[in-house]
Amino acid sequence: MSAALDIAPATPADVPLILGFIRELAEYEHLSDQVTATEDALRATLFGERPAAEVLIAHHDGVAAGFALYFQNYSTFLAKPGIYLEDLYVRPDQRGHGIGRALLAHIARLAVARGCGRFEWSVLDWNAPAIGFYRRLGAAPQDEWTIFRLSGDALKALASPN
Amino acid sequence: MSAALDIAPATPADVPLILGFIRELAEYEHLSDQVTATEDALRATLFGERPAAEVLIAHHDGVAAGFALYFQNYSTFLAKPGIYLEDLYVRPDQRGHGIGRALLAHIARLAVARGCGRFEWSVLDWNAPAIGFYRRLGAAPQDEWTIFRLSGDALKALASPN
Repeated sequence: MSAALDIAPATPADVPLILGFIRELAEYEHLSDQVTATEDALRATLFGERPAAEVLIAHHDGVAAGFALYFQNYSTFLAKPGIYLEDLYVRPDQRGHGIGRALLAHIARLAVARGCGRFEWSVLDWNAPAIGFYRRLGAAPQDEWTIFRLSGDALKALASPN
Repeated sequence: MSAALDIAPATPADVPLILGFIRELAEYEHLSDQVTATEDALRATLFGERPAAEVLIAHHDGVAAGFALYFQNYSTFLAKPGIYLEDLYVRPDQRGHGIGRALLAHIARLAVARGCGRFEWSVLDWNAPAIGFYRRLGAAPQDEWTIFRLSGDALKALASPN
């Protein structure tokens, strides 16, 4: 890790940068069609009265190099909160400087300081470089679990009176 | 759904019941060895100043039949909060009355009311009855994603100064 690496919580002024990172990450994940986020919506949900998530921005040699967005989750088995990392992204031209590892280590320290039992995230199955990186950190794939998602019309249908 | 079905937020008096449900669910999932939760820890994390999750208890004909525990998550792609269901459990002798569906529908209504874009949960790959049930509700398996978990010594190691 370079001494020129700085990691700090995002501020409302970072909203355009955050949206740029989200779009770059979605492009890398071939999921750009799923992105409907706007600057206004990010500002309202991340920097309003009750922020829904926390954001870290990494600068390397003064250049915005990547970000991490995370929130608290909960384990009933442990009866402890945890941290769930929704997004981790380092710009391609900034990789190889330990920035991703530094962001993860920053959040791991927060998790320990907050008494969390776990630090979790999800990765796309084809993202072999990321999977290798996570395994080397000692993270364990929860292969036996599948996430189910209800959204759009199916969510509205289940929510409607019956 | 029976008219005798009642779904309501849990209170601190429900802590022993909740711990019982958590243990029964863990047993069903063959994960009992992972349960270290205690009544005190549940009380502190769920009913303290800043609850880490919300809990619903379902009563059927006056009998405690099941529970759901959920918390808010966040989608960067949508720039919207979502709801993540950590645990859903209906006692074996109470199944077949639509209690699980009623708990999910209750949370789906909350999700819509709170402006959430998604309602998500995870299921064990061998739990075919649950998977069939979730698919029939229109929930989509996120098969291409794998959850990674850092805990215990690996979490401490990443959190330690380097």
